[in-house]
Amino acid sequence: MRAVDLIQKKKENKEHTQEEIDFLVNGYMDGTIEDYQMSAWLMAVYFNGLTDKETAYLTKAFVNSGDILDFSEISEFIADKHSTGGVGDKVTLCLIPILGALDIYTAKLSGRGLGFTGGTIDKLESIPGFKCELDNNTFYNQIKTIKAAISSQSPNLTPADGKIYALRDVTATVDNKSLICASVVSKKIASGATSIVLDVKFGSGAFLKTPEEASELAQLMVKTGKLLDRNIDTVISSMEQPLGTSVGNSLEVIEAIDFLKGSYADDLYEITLALAGKTLMNCAKIINPKHAKTLVDKVIKNGSALEKFKEIIIAQGGNPDVLENYSLFNKGKNVIEIKSLDTGYISKLTALDVAHAAKLLGAGRDKKSDSIDFGAGIIIKSKVGDFVNRGDVVLELYYNNVEKSRLDEAVKIARESFATSTIKVNKPKLIY
Amino acid sequence: MRAVDLIQKKKENKEHTQEEIDFLVNGYMDGTIEDYQMSAWLMAVYFNGLTDKETAYLTKAFVNSGDILDFSEISEFIADKHSTGGVGDKVTLCLIPILGALDIYTAKLSGRGLGFTGGTIDKLESIPGFKCELDNNTFYNQIKTIKAAISSQSPNLTPADGKIYALRDVTATVDNKSLICASVVSKKIASGATSIVLDVKFGSGAFLKTPEEASELAQLMVKTGKLLDRNIDTVISSMEQPLGTSVGNSLEVIEAIDFLKGSYADDLYEITLALAGKTLMNCAKIINPKHAKTLVDKVIKNGSALEKFKEIIIAQGGNPDVLENYSLFNKGKNVIEIKSLDTGYISKLTALDVAHAAKLLGAGRDKKSDSIDFGAGIIIKSKVGDFVNRGDVVLELYYNNVEKSRLDEAVKIARESFATSTIKVNKPKLIY
Repeated sequence: MRAVDLIQKKKENKEHTQEEIDFLVNGYMDGTIEDYQMSAWLMAVYFNGLTDKETAYLTKAFVNSGDILDFSEISEFIADKHSTGGVGDKVTLCLIPILGALDIYTAKLSGRGLGFTGGTIDKLESIPGFKCELDNNTFYNQIKTIKAAISSQSPNLTPADGKIYALRDVTATVDNKSLICASVVSKKIASGATSIVLDVKFGSGAFLKTPEEASELAQLMVKTGKLLDRNIDTVISSMEQPLGTSVGNSLEVIEAIDFLKGSYADDLYEITLALAGKTLMNCAKIINPKHAKTLVDKVIKNGSALEKFKEIIIAQGGNPDVLENYSLFNKGKNVIEIKSLDTGYISKLTALDVAHAAKLLGAGRDKKSDSIDFGAGIIIKSKVGDFVNRGDVVLELYYNNVEKSRLDEAVKIARESFATSTIKVNKPKLIY
Repeated sequence: MRAVDLIQKKKENKEHTQEEIDFLVNGYMDGTIEDYQMSAWLMAVYFNGLTDKETAYLTKAFVNSGDILDFSEISEFIADKHSTGGVGDKVTLCLIPILGALDIYTAKLSGRGLGFTGGTIDKLESIPGFKCELDNNTFYNQIKTIKAAISSQSPNLTPADGKIYALRDVTATVDNKSLICASVVSKKIASGATSIVLDVKFGSGAFLKTPEEASELAQLMVKTGKLLDRNIDTVISSMEQPLGTSVGNSLEVIEAIDFLKGSYADDLYEITLALAGKTLMNCAKIINPKHAKTLVDKVIKNGSALEKFKEIIIAQGGNPDVLENYSLFNKGKNVIEIKSLDTGYISKLTALDVAHAAKLLGAGRDKKSDSIDFGAGIIIKSKVGDFVNRGDVVLELYYNNVEKSRLDEAVKIARESFATSTIKVNKPKLIY
């Protein structure tokens, strides 16, 4: 077998065998297949796509390229959740304590954020002392003991995906649904999950622009799960405006804590409930998704979800006092209020603009090596469909030390991120 | 400017500027753009193509990447000829002496063969003593003195094409007409030609399978010439059966010598005449292509074309006695005759099969480092449309030392390379 023939084959839109995909992935890992051949193949995949079978083969090859975690001695059901990425998405922080309180084991491996805002790991690290770099043993034991752990991805989990992702990033071959699917699903499988729920987002603030695109990716992920004997379910949700009422690391953790205390934005609740329901179904805790609400509401109301979050924080070295004393967080010392210039209904609040402004304030990073200001971010006072009077605050910009030109840019973008309308605007549909 | 953005741009089928193409090519040459980015871009080009303008930009960037030869002080018109490659194609050896005898200057840079049979350089090197590695000065002076020189390509002529071609070869991105056009035309322009005739071949023995494909490539080359102020003309010809009556290095030189002595196969004459006609027109020697025949026939008949070949051989260190004494060539010591098993008309004689058999006999190479047996090859006694009796020899296989399994394979392929029909078969059309 020769790499050039396999590139030619994909160029001619023919289907690879598992053996051929393994040859490509393993060859790329052991250095017998060069970067320039892999990138040519990836571009051919961009144009001709992969079949469902090929996508599953690639996913499997990624899984097999590194460690595969196994929690089967702890439980038959190990849950995991993934979001394709959105602005203000702190669902993981709300969902995992709820699942833990409902006796569902969750093995959650997360990433740091690249782009506009921090990832789940960045958010958690805004809790003083919280450590995310768990080795496989610590991760295993924490799940066994308290049913939940959240760790940054170990370098030896799906290393082939890591190496290929880095190549895709510099060769304009990121945006292909099969490659995205293999990347996401392989990580979930290798991390030992048996029940995986995926929040596939669409809209101006998401990678996928339309619900149809999101739905295609979601269906492919479900099929890939089936072919690889994993239970994958998806929620397709809109990312036109930010999720919840905050964007930025500390601010989002605080919002998640409020959530677990029973005080939450409707959209954040809706999506958390939807993902909890699918997980509860998959893990045979309920037989009708309608039963999820009762269970979720119960563990919020009786405090057991918040208590589970406390256990996780303590287990991972964080200061649990943050749950009651938000001043322990780094929160931006300075605030700029962005007010509405008109009276009317908020007609748009563009997620990407809010994210961009938050990044300029210090909440995100451009390069892996950039540092994040956990205290920087934006609190959203009004969302699409809300009525505001002229002079009402719509956004609060929190920051510490930001150079003036960046700050001015952030303010300008924040101002332009929303608009009002004198005609009544309905709350947009969140879940597709 | 970033390479990844230019890859994305081509992926989105947008048109590059000259500046962008220069950025890619120069960046690739100076190492700031990596192999893996160039190969991803090449694959995107394969799928989305290049516009005529982009093709000209790329051609220009290739030309500018190295030395550019200039013969303008010798003559206003410098001719060059190129064939996209065929089996038994010894046209260059016939054409250049004819043009020289007609006072047309030719600066011919040729390649060695990779694949089934040797290239022009390999063929010429079968003349004892003949040297093809001329430096730029020697090449220039020989053209000035005797009007013709044939040299292997200097490494510093279109080095960007050389580097990119090597990459295309291992990433399945050879077969794109814009990339082929830029590769061919840039070499001709850099080698100083002002009048370029291209023999674009189609058929089972050529890279392009249909006359339509050949015509598309030909038109693109003509347009590219126009955009870069060069006079390019093309002949589109069939490569279903080998050209002339021999395949293999020494055998083809002998056939070319016979040609210059006035003894030739119809098809070889037809195509040589067509290319000579276009060159004579381009170089303002004639105003009607019909006048070419008189001139070509004259220099063959009066021996001046053969004399010109002799001058070239002497100038490049070869033994001119080969012109009269063919035994000075290495010619295969052993011969196997392949006879027709039926009586009838030859209905096919597959160029690729004949070439494959010749290669097995030692006439071609697989890798650059392989050596060639100049004496190995095939003489074709009957071509498509010829009538043969059962037992007539159709092919003669010449070889020296070939291991038995290769020889058996060559015989088998040679046997299957032709077929006969009891129904009369017309001579196929050569020039489209």
